[in-house]
Amino acid sequence: MYEYTLKGPVKGNPFQDVVLSATFTHGDISREVKGFYAGEGKYKVRFMPEEEGEWKFATVCNIKSLNNKKGVFQCVAPAAGNHGKVNIDGLHFSYSDGTSYFPFGTTSYAWTHQCDSLARESLKTLEKSPFNKIRMCVFPKRYRYILNEPEYFAFAGDKKNGFDFTRFNPEYWDNLELRLQQLQDMGMEADLILFHPYGNWGFQEMTPEQDKYYLEYLLGRLASFRNVWWSLANEYHLLKTKSEEDWDEIARFIKDNDPYNHPISIHNHPAQEYDWSKNWVSHISIQTHDQIRVNELKVALQKPAINDECGYEGDLPDEWGNLSPEEIVHRYWTGIVHGVYTTHGETYLNPQEVIWWSKGGELVGESISRIRFLRNLIEINDLKLDYNKPQGWGKHVSGGDFDNGMLIYFGHHQPGSWTFDFPEGKQYEITLIDTWEMTEKKLESKCSGKFTVKLPAEPGKALLVTPL
Amino acid sequence: MYEYTLKGPVKGNPFQDVVLSATFTHGDISREVKGFYAGEGKYKVRFMPEEEGEWKFATVCNIKSLNNKKGVFQCVAPAAGNHGKVNIDGLHFSYSDGTSYFPFGTTSYAWTHQCDSLARESLKTLEKSPFNKIRMCVFPKRYRYILNEPEYFAFAGDKKNGFDFTRFNPEYWDNLELRLQQLQDMGMEADLILFHPYGNWGFQEMTPEQDKYYLEYLLGRLASFRNVWWSLANEYHLLKTKSEEDWDEIARFIKDNDPYNHPISIHNHPAQEYDWSKNWVSHISIQTHDQIRVNELKVALQKPAINDECGYEGDLPDEWGNLSPEEIVHRYWTGIVHGVYTTHGETYLNPQEVIWWSKGGELVGESISRIRFLRNLIEINDLKLDYNKPQGWGKHVSGGDFDNGMLIYFGHHQPGSWTFDFPEGKQYEITLIDTWEMTEKKLESKCSGKFTVKLPAEPGKALLVTPL
Repeated sequence: MYEYTLKGPVKGNPFQDVVLSATFTHGDISREVKGFYAGEGKYKVRFMPEEEGEWKFATVCNIKSLNNKKGVFQCVAPAAGNHGKVNIDGLHFSYSDGTSYFPFGTTSYAWTHQCDSLARESLKTLEKSPFNKIRMCVFPKRYRYILNEPEYFAFAGDKKNGFDFTRFNPEYWDNLELRLQQLQDMGMEADLILFHPYGNWGFQEMTPEQDKYYLEYLLGRLASFRNVWWSLANEYHLLKTKSEEDWDEIARFIKDNDPYNHPISIHNHPAQEYDWSKNWVSHISIQTHDQIRVNELKVALQKPAINDECGYEGDLPDEWGNLSPEEIVHRYWTGIVHGVYTTHGETYLNPQEVIWWSKGGELVGESISRIRFLRNLIEINDLKLDYNKPQGWGKHVSGGDFDNGMLIYFGHHQPGSWTFDFPEGKQYEITLIDTWEMTEKKLESKCSGKFTVKLPAEPGKALLVTPL
Repeated sequence: MYEYTLKGPVKGNPFQDVVLSATFTHGDISREVKGFYAGEGKYKVRFMPEEEGEWKFATVCNIKSLNNKKGVFQCVAPAAGNHGKVNIDGLHFSYSDGTSYFPFGTTSYAWTHQCDSLARESLKTLEKSPFNKIRMCVFPKRYRYILNEPEYFAFAGDKKNGFDFTRFNPEYWDNLELRLQQLQDMGMEADLILFHPYGNWGFQEMTPEQDKYYLEYLLGRLASFRNVWWSLANEYHLLKTKSEEDWDEIARFIKDNDPYNHPISIHNHPAQEYDWSKNWVSHISIQTHDQIRVNELKVALQKPAINDECGYEGDLPDEWGNLSPEEIVHRYWTGIVHGVYTTHGETYLNPQEVIWWSKGGELVGESISRIRFLRNLIEINDLKLDYNKPQGWGKHVSGGDFDNGMLIYFGHHQPGSWTFDFPEGKQYEITLIDTWEMTEKKLESKCSGKFTVKLPAEPGKALLVTPL
């Protein structure tokens, strides 16, 4: 991220009065980005170059002293571990440098709205976690188990005296950016939820104009983070103040003002799916217990699919918050062999009511280590699982192909043997996997042709088939 | 069962030439039953009286020597353990004496078509089993893993020279009746599958007239067994030689010729449900993995529902034959709290290919002991589970009511607590159940009002709530 800071007026309402943008050029490439007022008389334009080499820029502003400011900088090669932004890659994802990105996300809606010590605890647990994406809200969340007030808000003002939707609170945004940077430093994507239905601060009742004003500011500040994704809403249809047209309009506005084309979607409540076939939707971000349904959608819409809420591991008395870790692991594996990615969530109750799902804190569940095991397996073998080459019911339980590798997950099934019909002239290695015990056992190191492998006839087993 | 035997002609085709029936009367009750030729010059009429006391009868026959034969007999009180025929009782079943009948069946399609020693082995295992019903075919079965020829067939003739659909083979029927009696002696209902699609002996290609001829003989011989049920077909729509009208006609014929109104249904393949709303259908006999769907149907049609094929426990390489015992137990419990009964099946491969599902033999699976545990629980507490009194998501996981007892099955959910809102002035006992370990632990011996019980937050748990 390149950031250019100017000094300017503090009088009036700089958020509204000063209209700043800049055009960045490199060879034939030209990109216009919006600037923003960062508080204390500072105006900034931020830019994420997507090509190495020399970039030039010039500002455009309705304030003369900030207009036509020019500069030049060198975009150097990415540092180690920086693979760039995540992009849609067929039915999967990859980074800008071509490396595969397999989304193994988690959810903590309001972790950035908690006190610094708790947020740092969340970051610590995230760093040790298997996750490479987190779903999180820009606006604070109010719901059962999360009734505390946040320290600061996106807008100026407070709940008692009301918020001024024409002025932002730079302190809030500085904190959010700190968290985004910390996530980026540990290789984690931030799936930012831009609107949601759970709160009583008035952010749900903003007008379409106020929504756009908010989004423009947000895009100016955050779009140049390479690790951000846009999630228009969580459980969109519970947000009764917005119509389907409103969502379309919000999406159009973001698409027009995000120069980088970050992944973008919208998340549903199980009672109502969204029409993810719309052009602006880059990937399916569904909530359902049914991974087979997600696969159906993925195939029908030809877009990558993430089940961003398959259920939470936990022990809450609430229906949505008490799946067993075994069931979570089962849903992950069922998803992955169908080329469906799954997002984790955790809802174990503790006396402090610091529940990962909303406040962050410490991850304690038993599915996590199994998700790490699965992620490692997928990444090490670079398994983009879609096609199903096995015949018969194999296609219901397997993903991949004979050229690039295949994963078969038997789930509740426990066949005592499995027969392959391998393509002529090719040899394969077969590894038996226990998805819960996280063990791998080589069953066959070289097999070919019509080949039957004996299996232990126990549930929760999988086979990894690797071409030699 | 009362049986009256007459001696008559052996010449010609006695099955066809002699038309015998009898009318049995007791007070105002009058029942007409068809007689049948039992071979070796013996003609029989069988009758199942449903009232104690003196019954009189007189035959009607187109052969003078068998016509207007009269008799009288005393129907005495039922022996211990004889509760009579099973009847529909709202959304459940009960015996004629009012005792609840909870169907916990199993499936062994062709066990009566195997050699005597194997059939006796099957009976031995059944006697030790938790089952009180068995689904079994009248016609032999030919399918993967069951390719042996049966010893005898329902009709005269053989495969090589063809069958004579106008003559029956009494040896076959004697054997079938022996098995039905043996089942009855151990308190087991026989859900007789009258037609099915798996075979190459020509029984699928009989004409509607031949079908009725067969059914009339079958009803004359078997309807007086108190433990028979009629299942028109297994996976009816795979039997391409019969149309929907044919099934209706078969059903009408049975209803007209079964004086006792035995339970009657037809079984589907998952690819196509049957319209069980039809008048003649006494109960739903579905095949599906989805117990929630069965409950939907039960509620919509207001008929008791048995999931007669929820999947088989086993280790076959075939998709339909390798569910884990854990999953089977999960389906049973999911079913029962919805007031849905489930039928067991087992498909473990052995070197002899004697698989319980078709040939019988020995039950070896791990779900059986858990099914026994569940059946005991249901019977001891006489739990007819339909209504759902708990509020919220409790209605998704529980059955029963506050007056008669309630069962809650959490399945993959593992709440750390559960809150009841008991009706005023009533007290309850709460027992924690581990559905796999088969343990019962009294959590509370006397609770009332709004009451929260702590739970262990592990999957596969259930609560039994008993009014004091």
